[in-house]
Amino acid sequence: MPIKNGNQYIERIDQQNLNLWYQGKRITEPYSQHPLFSGLMKTQAALYDLQCDPEYQDEMTYPSPLTGEPVGLSFLPPAHPDDIKRRKRMMDHWSAKHHGFLGRSPDYMNTALMSLYTAADILEEHNPAYAMNLRNYYAYCRENDITLSHAFIQPFASKVSGQVDSLEDSITAKVIEINEEGFMISGAFMMATQGVTCDEMLVFPTPTLYPLDDENPYAFAFAIPNDLKGITFICRESNASKSLYNHPLSARYEEMDTLVIFDRVLIPHDRMFYYGDENVGYRLFSDGNFHTHIGHQIVSRYIAKTEFFLGLVESLAQEQNVSFDANIIGQTAKIMTMLETFKALRIAAEEGAKQNKYGYYVPASSPLLASSILFPSFYLEMVDMIQRLGSSGIIMIPYEEDLSSEVGSYVNQYLHGLESTSKDRIALFRLVWELGAGSFGGRQSQFERFFFGNAQTVNFRMFNSYDNHEDYQQLIHDFLGIEKKETDNEEDQ
Amino acid sequence: MPIKNGNQYIERIDQQNLNLWYQGKRITEPYSQHPLFSGLMKTQAALYDLQCDPEYQDEMTYPSPLTGEPVGLSFLPPAHPDDIKRRKRMMDHWSAKHHGFLGRSPDYMNTALMSLYTAADILEEHNPAYAMNLRNYYAYCRENDITLSHAFIQPFASKVSGQVDSLEDSITAKVIEINEEGFMISGAFMMATQGVTCDEMLVFPTPTLYPLDDENPYAFAFAIPNDLKGITFICRESNASKSLYNHPLSARYEEMDTLVIFDRVLIPHDRMFYYGDENVGYRLFSDGNFHTHIGHQIVSRYIAKTEFFLGLVESLAQEQNVSFDANIIGQTAKIMTMLETFKALRIAAEEGAKQNKYGYYVPASSPLLASSILFPSFYLEMVDMIQRLGSSGIIMIPYEEDLSSEVGSYVNQYLHGLESTSKDRIALFRLVWELGAGSFGGRQSQFERFFFGNAQTVNFRMFNSYDNHEDYQQLIHDFLGIEKKETDNEEDQ
Amino acid sequence: MPIKNGNQYIERIDQQNLNLWYQGKRITEPYSQHPLFSGLMKTQAALYDLQCDPEYQDEMTYPSPLTGEPVGLSFLPPAHPDDIKRRKRMMDHWSAKHHGFLGRSPDYMNTALMSLYTAADILEEHNPAYAMNLRNYYAYCRENDITLSHAFIQPFASKVSGQVDSLEDSITAKVIEINEEGFMISGAFMMATQGVTCDEMLVFPTPTLYPLDDENPYAFAFAIPNDLKGITFICRESNASKSLYNHPLSARYEEMDTLVIFDRVLIPHDRMFYYGDENVGYRLFSDGNFHTHIGHQIVSRYIAKTEFFLGLVESLAQEQNVSFDANIIGQTAKIMTMLETFKALRIAAEEGAKQNKYGYYVPASSPLLASSILFPSFYLEMVDMIQRLGSSGIIMIPYEEDLSSEVGSYVNQYLHGLESTSKDRIALFRLVWELGAGSFGGRQSQFERFFFGNAQTVNFRMFNSYDNHEDYQQLIHDFLGIEKKETDNEEDQ
Amino acid sequence: MPIKNGNQYIERIDQQNLNLWYQGKRITEPYSQHPLFSGLMKTQAALYDLQCDPEYQDEMTYPSPLTGEPVGLSFLPPAHPDDIKRRKRMMDHWSAKHHGFLGRSPDYMNTALMSLYTAADILEEHNPAYAMNLRNYYAYCRENDITLSHAFIQPFASKVSGQVDSLEDSITAKVIEINEEGFMISGAFMMATQGVTCDEMLVFPTPTLYPLDDENPYAFAFAIPNDLKGITFICRESNASKSLYNHPLSARYEEMDTLVIFDRVLIPHDRMFYYGDENVGYRLFSDGNFHTHIGHQIVSRYIAKTEFFLGLVESLAQEQNVSFDANIIGQTAKIMTMLETFKALRIAAEEGAKQNKYGYYVPASSPLLASSILFPSFYLEMVDMIQRLGSSGIIMIPYEEDLSSEVGSYVNQYLHGLESTSKDRIALFRLVWELGAGSFGGRQSQFERFFFGNAQTVNFRMFNSYDNHEDYQQLIHDFLGIEKKETDNEEDQ
Repeated sequence: MPIKNGNQYIERIDQQNLNLWYQGKRITEPYSQHPLFSGLMKTQAALYDLQCDPEYQDEMTYPSPLTGEPVGLSFLPPAHPDDIKRRKRMMDHWSAKHHGFLGRSPDYMNTALMSLYTAADILEEHNPAYAMNLRNYYAYCRENDITLSHAFIQPFASKVSGQVDSLEDSITAKVIEINEEGFMISGAFMMATQGVTCDEMLVFPTPTLYPLDDENPYAFAFAIPNDLKGITFICRESNASKSLYNHPLSARYEEMDTLVIFDRVLIPHDRMFYYGDENVGYRLFSDGNFHTHIGHQIVSRYIAKTEFFLGLVESLAQEQNVSFDANIIGQTAKIMTMLETFKALRIAAEEGAKQNKYGYYVPASSPLLASSILFPSFYLEMVDMIQRLGSSGIIMIPYEEDLSSEVGSYVNQYLHGLESTSKDRIALFRLVWELGAGSFGGRQSQFERFFFGNAQTVNFRMFNSYDNHEDYQQLIHDFLGIEKKETDNEEDQ
Repeated sequence: MPIKNGNQYIERIDQQNLNLWYQGKRITEPYSQHPLFSGLMKTQAALYDLQCDPEYQDEMTYPSPLTGEPVGLSFLPPAHPDDIKRRKRMMDHWSAKHHGFLGRSPDYMNTALMSLYTAADILEEHNPAYAMNLRNYYAYCRENDITLSHAFIQPFASKVSGQVDSLEDSITAKVIEINEEGFMISGAFMMATQGVTCDEMLVFPTPTLYPLDDENPYAFAFAIPNDLKGITFICRESNASKSLYNHPLSARYEEMDTLVIFDRVLIPHDRMFYYGDENVGYRLFSDGNFHTHIGHQIVSRYIAKTEFFLGLVESLAQEQNVSFDANIIGQTAKIMTMLETFKALRIAAEEGAKQNKYGYYVPASSPLLASSILFPSFYLEMVDMIQRLGSSGIIMIPYEEDLSSEVGSYVNQYLHGLESTSKDRIALFRLVWELGAGSFGGRQSQFERFFFGNAQTVNFRMFNSYDNHEDYQQLIHDFLGIEKKETDNEEDQ
Repeated sequence: MPIKNGNQYIERIDQQNLNLWYQGKRITEPYSQHPLFSGLMKTQAALYDLQCDPEYQDEMTYPSPLTGEPVGLSFLPPAHPDDIKRRKRMMDHWSAKHHGFLGRSPDYMNTALMSLYTAADILEEHNPAYAMNLRNYYAYCRENDITLSHAFIQPFASKVSGQVDSLEDSITAKVIEINEEGFMISGAFMMATQGVTCDEMLVFPTPTLYPLDDENPYAFAFAIPNDLKGITFICRESNASKSLYNHPLSARYEEMDTLVIFDRVLIPHDRMFYYGDENVGYRLFSDGNFHTHIGHQIVSRYIAKTEFFLGLVESLAQEQNVSFDANIIGQTAKIMTMLETFKALRIAAEEGAKQNKYGYYVPASSPLLASSILFPSFYLEMVDMIQRLGSSGIIMIPYEEDLSSEVGSYVNQYLHGLESTSKDRIALFRLVWELGAGSFGGRQSQFERFFFGNAQTVNFRMFNSYDNHEDYQQLIHDFLGIEKKETDNEEDQ
Repeated sequence: MPIKNGNQYIERIDQQNLNLWYQGKRITEPYSQHPLFSGLMKTQAALYDLQCDPEYQDEMTYPSPLTGEPVGLSFLPPAHPDDIKRRKRMMDHWSAKHHGFLGRSPDYMNTALMSLYTAADILEEHNPAYAMNLRNYYAYCRENDITLSHAFIQPFASKVSGQVDSLEDSITAKVIEINEEGFMISGAFMMATQGVTCDEMLVFPTPTLYPLDDENPYAFAFAIPNDLKGITFICRESNASKSLYNHPLSARYEEMDTLVIFDRVLIPHDRMFYYGDENVGYRLFSDGNFHTHIGHQIVSRYIAKTEFFLGLVESLAQEQNVSFDANIIGQTAKIMTMLETFKALRIAAEEGAKQNKYGYYVPASSPLLASSILFPSFYLEMVDMIQRLGSSGIIMIPYEEDLSSEVGSYVNQYLHGLESTSKDRIALFRLVWELGAGSFGGRQSQFERFFFGNAQTVNFRMFNSYDNHEDYQQLIHDFLGIEKKETDNEEDQ
């Protein structure tokens, strides 16, 4: 099956039978009917429908190199200079639908898988079978429009355990047995976002260090269907809602995060992408330009989200009749500045795209890293704006149900705006409340803040994206007419 | 009845029969049994129990001037220099119980009423009957330990209406008729915090301006039982929870905010405190040193809350084994600095207490205003600290119910800390999540930010708390040896 | 004469005989010999030499449409799509020389004049003679490589005077007489930067409003040689220095600001560009895309300055042996982020260039405005970084003269770095001192902060650069499924 | 001689004959006549005159325990509860004179010496002779009103040298010989502020670690006259000015910082306070409550400086006719908040004073440390306010000399304010320029920022001022009902 539509997406997910737990109870009904997942799944389905919509299909798909049938453009490895821009258009169509609130719209993981695929060559030296596995899996996902999630962060105790416990006692995710059928894995992963509402899961822990020359049981990457025997999913507290009026965001975009436990799960041989050598893992991600391709998808999300905030601040200002206060103009101008900045950084990344050694075009990484350094603080600044602009008015807001109840006439009489009905005004304030004070918004803020790792990780990535630090130092030394010292510390990098 | 205990508090509230709505449905069961209110009412009950506890009673009460029975010390007008410190000790006992999370612990409104009472003299000129009403009502509350809420902010449309509509069409809260039985009032008020879980309500809108010399129907203040005919309460979305483990804060401190609608409600004559002259209202609050007495209560809350955050950051740092990182030391030192600052500002306010013209001692206002200018940004800074420190670890947290379920063993195996069990570690992270990303925390942040009005209001209050601006300008002019200009703009202040 | 070289620049300036005052004394010696101006003039001369340097001439000039001789590329009106990028290269060559410290490198005012020239058509309706004057003056400057400054901000008292005083008493700059020889002007202007070290001055005050239909004597723009009779220049305190070692920045880049007084100065008829109608002035600047063309030059300066700071922070970190501290990596990464941002915004502006109604290509304005909103705070953040990194070490620094004195051996013994000599280390710290704590740096910070007007002005400009605010509001209304209100306030914009 | 007056101060300094260098030249004329020092010395003289002024003498002095003659109150060890407040009044009199701009007003070092004196007992165990030396030196300074500076920070290379070089090669300040006459010292110190304009210098380097049980040649503290043989002073760039109008701050408060080199300087035996054991040094400072007593003096400076800024912002706002803009009210209210905070922290420190084991009263340290954590950022915020408020108006300002020159009439005509003369308006703007953009202000900002060490040092000091961190963690554990873990890491502190 080439690209799927929304119904097909839903059907496939509903067929899964996970060992899935929420609040101490196992969930057994079809996920698309369950309040925890139904809203999000409708949104995901709409995204899949979009790629089948004749109006968009051309820009959302390309002919499969295997069958000629249309497959998702997010799988397209950019082999031609224009592919980067084609990918951008595709991403923009999707992010215009979810306004940047989905961390795991399909293009995200498709892009991740595509990036690894482009570096499959490096696996050849390691083990040609792994190279073939990765290429086959990529083709399988592309041809069947598999919906993917991923897992790589381990719980605190698991991380520590790999460093201090003996291999036997260690609770770090590891291969505990290799047999004819495959690799037996045990371990736990935090935060498989949308783990439940995807078909399969890509798993690639950051490997714990291990004695050189030994086979490192902590070093591996694989992909599997979600419902393999031995996998358990445990949900965090949900923000999901059924009411688009009361919770316009949670009712659409609540992506559940899950703790995933592997208890002696058997990974088939053909689903393992590397094993035993942590350096292979590092190179796969770095040669695949993982963070850069992903960064290109993310900036599209940043742009959509910033536009949403721009509209929100302007709507909220108009509703409160303060659109032309200098203070509000200043805030609006600041969001416009953010928007111009992210758009410009994307243009710069695309302009600066270069072919890598495998022949694929890769956007310039520094502008994308710049966007991921700027966004967390810019995002918090936008949230702060709507909090200040909404002020105490976003606390006391009735429900939709109140409007149609016996006391609805009071609400209609007293809570309208200058030109808006109570119903419309409340709708706007509920949105601001959800984003600026509700738990959906709280999770979004944390999510954006740590999306790409903590600040230190992101800073190092940026620092290392330049290879001409010496030139900048030289500029100062030339200006002062003094001699540049040799950098002894280079090896410390 | 003098001071009441927790049971008495609950009984009295449960006897009320309000016209109370949540999500379009009327609530009719006893509030202490209802999930929306039961947790908060337990907390309030514990506060009332505390004042009856022999260990605390001496510091929480004083003998009624009428009966000699113990009455709540928060009703005590500070007529002796030491009364300010007695009041502080009482407030500290209560805030140590609710850690500053209750905006409406009993001392808040009791203090508000006490402050108005101390200025009852100014009502004499206006109308001696009103002065008597206020004094009687104060004595009634003190002697019966009445639990009060208040309402004064009107909806946006109501505020505008008073300025642009004819009196007839205006939806601003107003007296629409005066008859033998009392004053007939219609109008709506946002944000009666704890309106439902109190006995009575003090109502004092900011009066809309009205032609001079005319009786201003928008200018009044009164107090009434919550269940008078014609009053309707509509609740905002609730954060309440029954589980102390899953939601340690919401299960205790969720104070419901309500929209209160008055539809031709009859206020008995003896419950009106002033009417028709907005200047009387202004003077009542200003001569009663309303913001200063209240400010003295609030700083006690600030201190308790800051201590809670200090403990939380230190606990969270220890749990994550980073207590002695320079960065964490810096954050801890910053919270300690905030704590020292609020404690010092309270000491300064108490040291600077002066007798006012009615003979009552009033803390110095500027240090208290300083604390209310500093707290909103300091509070957001503390929230930011726990968000950063908790990072993505506060998103994926299971429920208590998961721990005892079939998958509990996985949780126990993987989510423990270095020295803590999974149960304890999760408990801590759930708290951080609630405060740093959940909707309870979101409401707290908005609440603290706008507690005392928006920044502009608070700034003006501070600016006007000095009457020697000229002296500071003179200091510069003396330094420069230039002549000080006359200030023409003095009247603009 | 087509493009001039450094010597020609100096000769021409030295020939001027201004009525120029510093510290209450008139300056009469050649400016290139005077300590106030010699350093800056050497820097300017080097810029002019650069355009004559065979290595650069191709990218710095184009053939005069009149003579075919090479003229400065900053005069080139972008009539072809590629002209924008040619202009960028030219600007980069110059800013690489002055590292962004010159607010008035020649391309700045040349660009300003070019922008007005492109809108000369709108003067045709007003008065064809003025259109001709502007075109002729532009050609004159281009063909003779005239060095220009400009003046437009009036002193506080002058601004007020135009609004409150009668025309006769008003001290606002105005035309006080028109006769056969020209327009007689009196008035004062703050802040003609480099007024002294330029050949001519472009003067265009923001016109005071005047009764409609009357000839507005405050509305005009003209250009004149600096040494016309009746013009007086008064200097501010100078930071200039003769020692490249002690004051590496001031010795090169100290652009003097001057107060310029016009006392019955006669402006020849052919040097007036519009008169009497303030709307003509507004349109000249807006149709000439003044702020956009200028903004394109400014972002080049921002980039050069940001690169200088990047080198400085990296050099300072290396000198202090902290290059790889997480904290320093974070600061370096932040400057890299700023650099990527400004580069990207420039790319976006160039990518988005469009032809205006006169057929000239104009960069997209919003990205350039974004850069001018971001730079002031980014700049202050970079200054803050070097202040923190330099800490108290930038206070106690000896002079070059100490190194060669009797006590030089002590300095050499004690003030060296790990791998640097005392001389080199001190050179670096003196630079940090100048930029981070000295008065040259102080003036730069104020200059950057208010370069393009105060924050409010810049915010309004940004806000008005979008004409689709409604679309963003519509996005939210569509999302919520509510109807968009008509904007009544449109006319208030 | 008991307290000295201004003339006596000047005479004594003028008698010194230092080996003093500025810009590579030795200074030999009397310092009070030299432009580098004359302004500051006049200010210091005025402070000494104040203590002799009959109006102030009572509050500035106390009877010498030796002679009964009046000696400086800053020497008074607080042996009685009221002494802390007496010391405060004395400090306030002096800081009201220098508005907090003097880092080394006499009370600063007198307090430092007093604090060490109060812990002289701990030297008894070490060596009774040192205890006697310290007591005698303290009495000598008190009885002769000696003006002191201090030196303790060593150059970067010196600090490193002590850790990596052999004792012989090390350039770290050290005792190189002990003979009958005393201790021979070589080494260099950065930043002896006011080194030149004091009588004597207290020297106490932070000791480099040394093998245990060995006599540590880097561990010592002593005091000596400035003009001992072998001592060289090298000045930094000066901001001094002779004109009170042009540079109202630098002309009064420019405290020169000097590099001090000891080249085989012989310290008499009776001037050494400890030697050879770094722990004695640590305990002397810690048991003497050095940072607390000093902190009490510093907060007095903070208060005076904050008041100066309050006057400055209000004056500048009035001069520009914006006193009642909401934005300016907000800034003024913020400075008032800072002022209230510092005053309150001082009150809290004084209220919390306790007797130490030697019987002396010591203010509570935490509130003082809080003030030193808050001040640097508050100070920069105030500087930012005057920069924004002054905007480009603080760049272009003429000199006093221009006012009386031929072009003075222009200045008078155009640069006046609404109600102020040009002379007065310019005076105000020159002050803002000096403080907000000039190099005097730049040095002040750096100075305040690093006054008490870098942020990390100050944070650790604050963190360690609490000994009940466990209690705060316990509070959270009690709240959550979980068990408190043992802190293993305690020894890591």
